[in-house]
Amino acid sequence: MSHTAAQRRTRVDTSCVEAAVSQLRATLADKVTMTKAELDGHGRDESWHDPAPPDAVVYAESTEDVVAVVQACAAHRVPLVPFGAGTSLEGHVAALHGGITLDMTRMNRVLRINAEDLDCTVEAGITRKALDEQLRRHGVFFPIDPGADATIGGMTATRASGTNAVRYGTMRDNVLALTAVLPDGTVVRTGTRARKSSAGYDLTRLLVGSEGTLAVVTEVTLRLYGVPEVIGAAVCPFESLGGAVDTVIETVQLGVQVARIELLDERQIMASNAFSDLGLEEAPTLFLEFHGSRQTVQEQARIVGEIAETHGQRGWTFTTRTDERNRLWRARHDAYYADLALRPGAKGIPTDACVPISQLARVVAETRRDIEDAHVLAPIVGHVGDGNFHVIFLVDPDDPVELATAQELNRRLVRRAQAAGGTCTGEHGIGYGKLEFMREEHGDGVEVMKTIKRAIDPLNIMNPGKVVAAADTRGAGDAG
Amino acid sequence: MSHTAAQRRTRVDTSCVEAAVSQLRATLADKVTMTKAELDGHGRDESWHDPAPPDAVVYAESTEDVVAVVQACAAHRVPLVPFGAGTSLEGHVAALHGGITLDMTRMNRVLRINAEDLDCTVEAGITRKALDEQLRRHGVFFPIDPGADATIGGMTATRASGTNAVRYGTMRDNVLALTAVLPDGTVVRTGTRARKSSAGYDLTRLLVGSEGTLAVVTEVTLRLYGVPEVIGAAVCPFESLGGAVDTVIETVQLGVQVARIELLDERQIMASNAFSDLGLEEAPTLFLEFHGSRQTVQEQARIVGEIAETHGQRGWTFTTRTDERNRLWRARHDAYYADLALRPGAKGIPTDACVPISQLARVVAETRRDIEDAHVLAPIVGHVGDGNFHVIFLVDPDDPVELATAQELNRRLVRRAQAAGGTCTGEHGIGYGKLEFMREEHGDGVEVMKTIKRAIDPLNIMNPGKVVAAADTRGAGDAG
Repeated sequence: MSHTAAQRRTRVDTSCVEAAVSQLRATLADKVTMTKAELDGHGRDESWHDPAPPDAVVYAESTEDVVAVVQACAAHRVPLVPFGAGTSLEGHVAALHGGITLDMTRMNRVLRINAEDLDCTVEAGITRKALDEQLRRHGVFFPIDPGADATIGGMTATRASGTNAVRYGTMRDNVLALTAVLPDGTVVRTGTRARKSSAGYDLTRLLVGSEGTLAVVTEVTLRLYGVPEVIGAAVCPFESLGGAVDTVIETVQLGVQVARIELLDERQIMASNAFSDLGLEEAPTLFLEFHGSRQTVQEQARIVGEIAETHGQRGWTFTTRTDERNRLWRARHDAYYADLALRPGAKGIPTDACVPISQLARVVAETRRDIEDAHVLAPIVGHVGDGNFHVIFLVDPDDPVELATAQELNRRLVRRAQAAGGTCTGEHGIGYGKLEFMREEHGDGVEVMKTIKRAIDPLNIMNPGKVVAAADTRGAGDAG
Repeated sequence: MSHTAAQRRTRVDTSCVEAAVSQLRATLADKVTMTKAELDGHGRDESWHDPAPPDAVVYAESTEDVVAVVQACAAHRVPLVPFGAGTSLEGHVAALHGGITLDMTRMNRVLRINAEDLDCTVEAGITRKALDEQLRRHGVFFPIDPGADATIGGMTATRASGTNAVRYGTMRDNVLALTAVLPDGTVVRTGTRARKSSAGYDLTRLLVGSEGTLAVVTEVTLRLYGVPEVIGAAVCPFESLGGAVDTVIETVQLGVQVARIELLDERQIMASNAFSDLGLEEAPTLFLEFHGSRQTVQEQARIVGEIAETHGQRGWTFTTRTDERNRLWRARHDAYYADLALRPGAKGIPTDACVPISQLARVVAETRRDIEDAHVLAPIVGHVGDGNFHVIFLVDPDDPVELATAQELNRRLVRRAQAAGGTCTGEHGIGYGKLEFMREEHGDGVEVMKTIKRAIDPLNIMNPGKVVAAADTRGAGDAG
């Protein structure tokens, strides 16, 4: 569906792009590029959605560069797509209407680390792993960890989360302040370094998750955490998927503060065994992590171990060894790539519905039944402590029947999650791949979003066609 | 300053109000009232700011009632002020331009408690204490606790927090979803019951803290927590204010998960001794609370006790007895009323700046010096774990010199906090009392807020004159 929609969209007039590019070349010189390899490389993300290359790519090296690009795009009504690591999963970076892609990866400096206040400020183009390396030296860490080595700016844009969210929250909870360039070139600083504030509308939270449709984020102030005194990890296979899920539910309801509690079904274990050489039993399995003092970690592991005992666990392996832990979590982060390797040439269609925890067992079971009935290859893996899980449909992109089947199962899953009080996306975002689910989830809230989009970006130059349906917003980006 | 501003504002034309009231009487009958006592009672909050009574008060009993009132106000361009417990501190409920005040206190039902999912949905007019009573029966609690027995709707509107925020966050973190009536009468449901979502703009967070200027919140879905297995409380006096503050800083930086860590200076202890019969030594004192298993609580208390030891503590009293704890925290919640009782006839001017924790000791010390130099009566009390503290200036409202002195010291404090990377308000909000600080804190962000306000409330009927300066928005509410 999104494919035909993408094809239907018209591109911005070449003369407009040329005018913007020539204006930019005068000041930004070779930061502007139009080689085919660069255009192609910037038009696609890690998803199955059709790529759409921009007409030009600009590498920003400062907020001033971003201002110059935004102003040129505004002057000539040229669509602008911010680009980080290109690891998004719903076509967020596709230049659906052509225009200029703004590559942020050269803005990758850490501007300030304050271990005393447990915060830091970074440029938007730094990746989470590059940041982590610098933070560790100060005895602090940033917990948000999507599978990919995404940029902090991209993670801000999609309101990303990951395996630690059950304890530390998501980007929503861990971005304190932002520097952003508005569609007219104005630079705003939202939020402060204070932990809380009641000073007016929460512009920080409005921009977090707005996917580059309201502003380009150039700097991000993040909340940090002290590296725990002790970190313990556990692996626990179960007789059934239901037993694993029930263990998660009971753990969360008891208020045990696990740092991570991840589910991998037997198919995912098979894929990860092969890709990451884990050597685990092929059974529905929980990966867990506990943070705190030695005493706290031992107590938490004991409690969860006891809960697992009552739900058909088949072994509980606990370790505080760093190398073993790292191997485990690297494998977990590589789950998507492991799945892709399971079927060479296949594309992954990863779902990410999120439901209230009491609904999780039923929603997962019904989804699993759908998968089995349709005879498709689709491992399940997820951040089940949040009620969030992924089905990774592995499909032949050239087989329309397979594609249609996966999409239909995804639609059923989303409807099931929404009916259960949940959301169509726990962490991947809308991009253009999930636009069709917005109305059902938000009702007239979609109109409020469009009102905000029109008010802040009246020319509709900021990543047009994402989050709010392009056809309903005015401006050049949707001239067609 | 805000006083003259209030007086300068013109009121909506009487004929408009009459038209709206007569439209409403036809359907809402005696839910509409215009008695002087009702008007006066709804024009003031607990602050020192000049009251401004509305022209009519309507008691809403359902979302449908709210829709009727909003539609009538929109049709006749009449300002609308939502009203909860009337405990705001920056003139939030003053009907600066006249119009209709919408009293939400009859919408006080708990619609759903789901202990399994640790969430509930309530009508906006329920107070936090009334909710707490119902929650306790389910073994869960809601942690946000401003001093006053505010309504959940009012707490949502001001992005309130309280003593537990250092561990559990603020209303920003604990509101999952909202039902709200937009300025055109549309009912929207923002958010879902899922713990996290990346589905579009975060309308929930946009409305939390918007002080009734964008919509009227009628239902709130809240995140809950299991009642801890053990709760331990401690009281610890210090030789100096600096020693108490340093203990807080070190505790937070070490990552000890205290549930509450509150500072009361010797003046506040004096006031609370008199008001709440505490019998504590008159010294700068920390009130603390620890939540968790017996083991965790003991471990945390031991660690903080050791930190206090190195910063001049003069005694550490620990208890897990419910009655002693309750007495302590009741006294803490009554701190503002205790201060008012310290000087009969005086009004309180409570500041609430919030700074990064590393700046707290300096900012508190400099503020304390200001107070001493000016020879004013102003206890200090606060949620220091968040970097948030209150100076309660006790002034004779009829003495312009006292008023001006307190305002000037507050301005100095706000400037000091903002320069330290903090905010003018950690939890009280802007109302009309703190409008003057918005520009310095947000720069051009204020323009973004105005853009959003104009887009969502083009007639400027929703609580005009609050959060964003009235004179800069268009519409009837600011006709004068």
